[in-house]
Amino acid sequence: MAALEWPIRAQSLKGVVLDMCGVLYDSGAGDGEAIPGSREAVQRLKRSDLQLRFCTNETQASREHFVAKLRRLGFDISVSEVFSPAPAAVSVLRARALRPHLLVCDGLLPEFEGVDQSDPNCVVIGDAAEKFSYQNLNEAFRVLMGLDRPLLFSLGQGRYYKETDGLKLDVGVYTKALEYACDVKAEVIGKPSQAFFRSVLGDMGIQPQQALMIGDDLVSDVGGAQSCGMMGVQVRTGKYRPSDESHATVRADGTVDDLSQAVDLLLRPRGQ
Amino acid sequence: MAALEWPIRAQSLKGVVLDMCGVLYDSGAGDGEAIPGSREAVQRLKRSDLQLRFCTNETQASREHFVAKLRRLGFDISVSEVFSPAPAAVSVLRARALRPHLLVCDGLLPEFEGVDQSDPNCVVIGDAAEKFSYQNLNEAFRVLMGLDRPLLFSLGQGRYYKETDGLKLDVGVYTKALEYACDVKAEVIGKPSQAFFRSVLGDMGIQPQQALMIGDDLVSDVGGAQSCGMMGVQVRTGKYRPSDESHATVRADGTVDDLSQAVDLLLRPRGQ
Repeated sequence: MAALEWPIRAQSLKGVVLDMCGVLYDSGAGDGEAIPGSREAVQRLKRSDLQLRFCTNETQASREHFVAKLRRLGFDISVSEVFSPAPAAVSVLRARALRPHLLVCDGLLPEFEGVDQSDPNCVVIGDAAEKFSYQNLNEAFRVLMGLDRPLLFSLGQGRYYKETDGLKLDVGVYTKALEYACDVKAEVIGKPSQAFFRSVLGDMGIQPQQALMIGDDLVSDVGGAQSCGMMGVQVRTGKYRPSDESHATVRADGTVDDLSQAVDLLLRPRGQ
Repeated sequence: MAALEWPIRAQSLKGVVLDMCGVLYDSGAGDGEAIPGSREAVQRLKRSDLQLRFCTNETQASREHFVAKLRRLGFDISVSEVFSPAPAAVSVLRARALRPHLLVCDGLLPEFEGVDQSDPNCVVIGDAAEKFSYQNLNEAFRVLMGLDRPLLFSLGQGRYYKETDGLKLDVGVYTKALEYACDVKAEVIGKPSQAFFRSVLGDMGIQPQQALMIGDDLVSDVGGAQSCGMMGVQVRTGKYRPSDESHATVRADGTVDDLSQAVDLLLRPRGQ
């Protein structure tokens, strides 16, 4: 069966990259809920001979805050293992001497401390959730329209995610809105940008074909990783929808019920 | 000069269609403000041998309310002369036995009185302005995602308009957001849809080449009318921007300072 081919191809792997929301936990009221078996799966990976990194497009909170939440949910994770768009954006802004107008959650603001935000010459948009009011989106729009060359950075381009009380619109939806309003194309920072995946591979010191991405977002996680040369496996948790398995352009290397099953299929042939 | 060719070609015209916001008046606090000379220009057209209709993508208020505002601003306009997307949408919903979830301003709701809105099987989005909260957009998104085949109607597809206190995001921006979120293509009702222009021509009983559209929106007014076979002239009021005159895909038949100048160039060769 095609579905069982990927663990065989995965025997040459040296590293695994895990998406977080929808793979480790479902977000929602309070800290959200750990997905059954995912804590143990992370522990098994940590005890294995594979390197492990976490790669999230989470932009509602700083990494410190976010990792603290995951630890409260029982996950053995530290900030240095987590790659997220905001620090990557700060690097880009510094390298290009840009001053951003930020359309992000208050919780993300600490990541931008020390970045000059006066007289903005670009807009950075994250998953601002409830802060995506008409007024706030209009303000970002006016900043862009006031620039000779509108410059928009999007922290990810997700369409939606699942919280315990249902589906929620993600940053990509509002990025498309501003792109249309200003007739510009945003630069995406985070998944599925190849630069973002390459920075994770660089940190592990391995090649793309030696790495596997496991995520619930077919386009951003699986498609993004594959376009970078990595393998991509989708879990049937989080925002997974059955129609993903017959998607027009992206086909996962494998689809599994959850992280626990993925890790079992991965480690058992390695005798771990 | 190319700029002066259109009044010559316009000598065979039988009807004129005017956009309203940005041509007759600038919206803003209260009723907004009439654009200088536009009241007199409408009067001159009404006294001429040309038929006159008004064609707006205004969806913040019912036609009754909207026309009352224009009359307070001093314009001689009646409801029967005004074509707007909401009544056109009601016709479509009735013809196809659809039950809409409405994401529109409260002021537009009277246009949908008597339309069954229970157990919705489509979404109709208008210029909801301040009602475009994260929660309201998310609610429309969830309705669409709950349908076997998401069906979205957009009342126009404008990018932005100008009020007295600055540029404001228009319905098209939020339509693009929902299109991306749900991976659907909206059906546009209103300008620049050809069906909408044809309904205005039908009401006047004339052919497209006998009609001229005057608007401030290059794509929606001018481009829409031209794609229907009408002439399209842009005014340098409202949302006009100098870059419109070198647009990649739409080229107006003429560009004038304001409605007053357009009407003068149009009627003087006719001796009126």
